[in-house]
Amino acid sequence: MSRSAAVIRLGGHVDEVVITGGLGFIGSHVADAYLSAGYRVRVIDSAIGAVIDGSDYASNARYKLVREPVEDYLAGGGTFNGVDRVIHAASHVGPAGILPRAGTLGYDIVASSSAVVEECLAADVPLCVFSSAEVYGRSGILDERDPLRVPTAYNARIEYGVAKAVVEAMTVNSMARGLRAVVIRPFNVAGQRQSRAGGFVMPTFVQQALAGRPLTVFGDGKQIRAFTAADDLTHFVLDYMDAAIDVGEPIVNIGNPANRTTIGGLAERVRDLLGSDSPILHTDGRSLHGDAYAEAESFEKMPALHAATTLGWKPSVGLDDLIRATADYYESREDVRGRHAPL
Amino acid sequence: MSRSAAVIRLGGHVDEVVITGGLGFIGSHVADAYLSAGYRVRVIDSAIGAVIDGSDYASNARYKLVREPVEDYLAGGGTFNGVDRVIHAASHVGPAGILPRAGTLGYDIVASSSAVVEECLAADVPLCVFSSAEVYGRSGILDERDPLRVPTAYNARIEYGVAKAVVEAMTVNSMARGLRAVVIRPFNVAGQRQSRAGGFVMPTFVQQALAGRPLTVFGDGKQIRAFTAADDLTHFVLDYMDAAIDVGEPIVNIGNPANRTTIGGLAERVRDLLGSDSPILHTDGRSLHGDAYAEAESFEKMPALHAATTLGWKPSVGLDDLIRATADYYESREDVRGRHAPL
Ligand SMILES: NC(=O)c1ccc[n+]([C@@H]2O[C@H](COP(=O)([O-])OP(=O)(O)OC[C@H]3O[C@@H](n4cnc5c(N)ncnc54)[C@H](O)[C@@H]3O)[C@@H](O)[C@H]2O)c1
Ligand SMILES: NC(=O)c1ccc[n+]([C@@H]2O[C@H](COP(=O)([O-])OP(=O)(O)OC[C@H]3O[C@@H](n4cnc5c(N)ncnc54)[C@H](O)[C@@H]3O)[C@@H](O)[C@H]2O)c1
Repeated sequence: MSRSAAVIRLGGHVDEVVITGGLGFIGSHVADAYLSAGYRVRVIDSAIGAVIDGSDYASNARYKLVREPVEDYLAGGGTFNGVDRVIHAASHVGPAGILPRAGTLGYDIVASSSAVVEECLAADVPLCVFSSAEVYGRSGILDERDPLRVPTAYNARIEYGVAKAVVEAMTVNSMARGLRAVVIRPFNVAGQRQSRAGGFVMPTFVQQALAGRPLTVFGDGKQIRAFTAADDLTHFVLDYMDAAIDVGEPIVNIGNPANRTTIGGLAERVRDLLGSDSPILHTDGRSLHGDAYAEAESFEKMPALHAATTLGWKPSVGLDDLIRATADYYESREDVRGRHAPL
Repeated sequence: MSRSAAVIRLGGHVDEVVITGGLGFIGSHVADAYLSAGYRVRVIDSAIGAVIDGSDYASNARYKLVREPVEDYLAGGGTFNGVDRVIHAASHVGPAGILPRAGTLGYDIVASSSAVVEECLAADVPLCVFSSAEVYGRSGILDERDPLRVPTAYNARIEYGVAKAVVEAMTVNSMARGLRAVVIRPFNVAGQRQSRAGGFVMPTFVQQALAGRPLTVFGDGKQIRAFTAADDLTHFVLDYMDAAIDVGEPIVNIGNPANRTTIGGLAERVRDLLGSDSPILHTDGRSLHGDAYAEAESFEKMPALHAATTLGWKPSVGLDDLIRATADYYESREDVRGRHAPL
């Protein structure tokens, strides 16, 4: 379906993709995939939460790095004119990463996303926006059409979730103004380069196992999640974005129900697969990340995949491969962003 | 309780209140009440949705008008230094008023409110923020502690509601940063000066009855609402804001369950009370306000008043008085803002 292969057009024009947050975990995977497919890539990233510094691409003539917040870039006269698509992955992210930003987080997320939406409208460029499974705010098997639930005992997580809901609303409501767009709600993405800095569990367990340190499971470890490979997500963006826009599926869950696991189960699996002797330590997230840390509202967070599977997309990377890929990466590299994060 | 009477302090300092949106319906009532109580009032209003032009206050030395969006005022160096309290009532409002702004509405609401929160923190001034009953997103008797519900078939109303939820989250989360604040969720406020322009039902029915035109009831007219006098709301702001901040009740419903009525019942009551012969016309909101118009999700929208009544506040103005006050006002005055709105 709609594989975006032919990117070199008549007259030698090579399609260009703008990727905001392209120095981040997901954005860098998307950038790699577009580069492999022959596109030109323009990354716009403030570097505030970067997992790479971009130096690996320095010699690639099709890669351009703008090291600036996207809202400043646009306010300062930067445009998307002539760009062929925009992937908006820039955001503050992560259950621990967002904590110091509570109170301003909502504004930051809404302001940068609104600037991107307005410029996509002005330049008439199709847009893919990353929202979050956090918007659902509740437990269970979560369907794109389900109403969202917002607990009103506000904390940073909820501010993040409702801000993402505003981004979704602005994006969807702007379709009547001519915007061509799709909103992706990713469910627990994992893979190479994901930093433990934001408070993400997969790189934390893997790095703990590699360092022979205890694997820190929060609470009773019975929380249920389904981990999705960044590559599976990237596959949707590259090959199904246009189709999603064409059929008018404005919101698409991306996740991998086959990788369903409890967090305690994940800890054991990481330990076994990596042949580690690390003990499993049940503790409280607050002991690592401070008193403001809050667990997700959702005890179980599983995606229903109606929209994506209707379009023909399927996830394929299993949990063991995901653990191994993360371990391979951190065996040879440091978690640069996570250098000062708890291990 | 905590009646804020003594506003003239040692050394002759007269307390000053900043009221954003003070040329609007609620903001102008709040301004009048503070002026009556002896305060100095600084209104900051872009005039984009003003119901008055401020000329009535021109000779009042305690009244100052800044005709500018509050976010521009603050970005341009305006401050709240030395101000004693800030009442943030500036917003795009009204089921029809917000329609042309779908897609940017969320940003506007979040951006102006974030600027106000940040300046209240910087200048260490207590803040009262107006949210909306629209945040609840569902039907029934709505309690401050209830989780909110966000339907994901986004429209302008939902963008408005989730943006207000982000404002609530930023305000509440900023309390840990030192902000002293209370968030008010008003339920169907009505009274003098409310314009029919935003799509509000009370001034629409009253002006239709006065003009001998049909009273336009949307749908079957069985929707249930409880109308609250602007004066009752103002009474809470003046006399209970400090107490709410002191006891740490961050979110307060303000409404009047005694004024419970169906919309069809309201139409009849307006007609009877004003001795009008106008027919009652059942129609669709879209025939007046265009295809994008959406009814509220909540079929029944009734406030639970735990927080406010615990503090000692009670609403006192009955529905008939509210209808008469609105009619008295529009018998002698034009609905300036509503001049071009459907009647
Ligand atoms: N990782 C997940 O499991 C997951 C799950 C759900 C949603 N998401 C969403 O996917 C997107 C990408 O997440 P990620 O995991 O790659 O996060 P990340 O932190 O690794 O990457 C985000 C990148 O955005 C950059 N950035 C932040 N604000 C910016 C701004 N204003 N302008 C330009 N750059 C800015 C950061 O420097 C960082 O490089 C985000 O929108 C996130 O909310 C991720
Ligand atoms: N009227 C109601 O029943 C009701 C119900 C729930 C919540 N509210 C909330 O109460 C507040 C006041 O509502 P209202 O009914 O008086 O509305 P209104 O439209 O009569 O008044 C709003 C005022 O804000 C001004 N304004 C808008 N954006 C501004 C900005 N960026 N900077 C400065 N001024 C700006 C407008 O010019 C207008 O004068 C709003 O926050 C609204 O969401 C009202």
